[in-house]
Amino acid sequence: MMYIGVDLGGTNIAVGLVDCDGKIVAKSSVPTNANREPDAIMDDIANEVLSVLAENRVSLNDISWLGIGSPGTIDSENGLVVCAHNLPFSQYPICEALKKRLRLPVYLGNDGNCAALGESISGVTKDYADSIVITLGTGVGGGIILNHKIHKGYNDGAGEVGHMVIQADGAPCTCGQAGCFEAYSSATALIRMTREAMEKYPDSRLHELSAFGSHVSGKTAFLAAKEGDMAGCEVVEQYIRYLAIGITNLLNLFQPQIIAIGGGISHEGDNLLLPLRREIEKRAFKTKGGFTNKIELAVLGNDAGIIGAAFLGL
Amino acid sequence: MMYIGVDLGGTNIAVGLVDCDGKIVAKSSVPTNANREPDAIMDDIANEVLSVLAENRVSLNDISWLGIGSPGTIDSENGLVVCAHNLPFSQYPICEALKKRLRLPVYLGNDGNCAALGESISGVTKDYADSIVITLGTGVGGGIILNHKIHKGYNDGAGEVGHMVIQADGAPCTCGQAGCFEAYSSATALIRMTREAMEKYPDSRLHELSAFGSHVSGKTAFLAAKEGDMAGCEVVEQYIRYLAIGITNLLNLFQPQIIAIGGGISHEGDNLLLPLRREIEKRAFKTKGGFTNKIELAVLGNDAGIIGAAFLGL
Repeated sequence: MMYIGVDLGGTNIAVGLVDCDGKIVAKSSVPTNANREPDAIMDDIANEVLSVLAENRVSLNDISWLGIGSPGTIDSENGLVVCAHNLPFSQYPICEALKKRLRLPVYLGNDGNCAALGESISGVTKDYADSIVITLGTGVGGGIILNHKIHKGYNDGAGEVGHMVIQADGAPCTCGQAGCFEAYSSATALIRMTREAMEKYPDSRLHELSAFGSHVSGKTAFLAAKEGDMAGCEVVEQYIRYLAIGITNLLNLFQPQIIAIGGGISHEGDNLLLPLRREIEKRAFKTKGGFTNKIELAVLGNDAGIIGAAFLGL
Repeated sequence: MMYIGVDLGGTNIAVGLVDCDGKIVAKSSVPTNANREPDAIMDDIANEVLSVLAENRVSLNDISWLGIGSPGTIDSENGLVVCAHNLPFSQYPICEALKKRLRLPVYLGNDGNCAALGESISGVTKDYADSIVITLGTGVGGGIILNHKIHKGYNDGAGEVGHMVIQADGAPCTCGQAGCFEAYSSATALIRMTREAMEKYPDSRLHELSAFGSHVSGKTAFLAAKEGDMAGCEVVEQYIRYLAIGITNLLNLFQPQIIAIGGGISHEGDNLLLPLRREIEKRAFKTKGGFTNKIELAVLGNDAGIIGAAFLGL
């Protein structure tokens, strides 16, 4: 038997055919075109699933279920997307809509949780019962896996790592609060810190590397730091310090064997990971045997969300 | 069958005989006198256990096991207290030491975790699978219960809620870091805030209520606030705001059905609880069905630690 995993995003919908070992056999994607009726989006998802199956000569009868990961607030028990940024859903019965179209059991999960589950099925966290994946992108997403299962809480709301406050009264967050981890560790936050440093250091390499401010990205400060630019180093150090504070909080609360970091910023690799590990080790609360948690990079990229969604039915 | 629960503290050791419904049948306590050899402390614990049993005409044969909750860093698997503030233990084999003296199976847990487990066995959190108890005393302790069991992590270090940073680069904490929840929500922190307000407001009632600064306690600001003193109200508001930030973090991460608050400060009752609930509701990240977590006062006081320790063997 195989499963279908769907990763629903504001821009694209990725559909994957996943085998029972957590390997993606085939995948495909279709634009979300989020500014239309939910039913039209559902039609596209169903058609994309059917075309992936047809192309790979797999019958619907060989599929145990479909799992879908959605951003926003969900109700997994009732199969509803309660609301989601950039998606036209309000208490939308997504499971029923897909079930009607495909005649498959349909399971719904939060996208951050699906990514964490995916990594724990066939990614970097797969050998560990407890793990956390955090995704450093436009925002900070995440998911918490305890005993090989998503910890979703009684109301599907657990694992909102991005909205853990690490700086009371700090930088404003998209959620309406201030000082959230997301407001310090997202790519958006890194860009803000880079711009602040550019103002403070008019002679820094940050200016040239960002075409004089018109193309500041999450890479700019890391690039400048690699060239030895002092302002770049200062931004990277500041960013990693906040990231370490948030991750250390998660360690002190959950003590998972491993925390994996995904999302755009994770492509900095060792330039991010090595100083981050040192900073976390310095901060972690004392436990037996000292600091033994593993801090690693996620390895599945966008596939994690598909694989995790596919395994929601397990 | 019955169990023995021992709550080991820096000042006192409480011993309880606990039935299988989680009710304390008898209890007793003995001073820790922490500045002596560990073996002498173990002798006192064993003697106290035997005298509680004798007084209640219970034979050792009727006892399934003894559980002990210890502060500090523990190794539950190997029965070691790795280290503990105010206690003379360093990699001390506490389980072996008590087993030798009493010929009972002995289980070891962290004291904060035991208190949380105790409340979940027979206290305010008992009807809920997932719960968190935080204790607002000299420090901020806590324990996390998931699916009716202590979440201790792979290294016994989980649930260190007091050392979650909520204010990066904030007030210094006893753990050596800065900005921990404990540095803002302990009685010690409340006293610091009260003293700061006294300096700022030389005419406030805080001065008289604390005998002109010689007896500032965790109650001073709450007392002044009850009398309508502006400075007192300001301190209480500030304290509750930080407490709400920390608790909201725990909600956003764990989504337990209930969080219970114990420790000295919890005796303020509704003066603490009602504004705290409002502040948390304002801050909590959106979940299906809105804010439905329960925020309550712990009900077992110091008995929670005894009951939780007694149930470590379950």
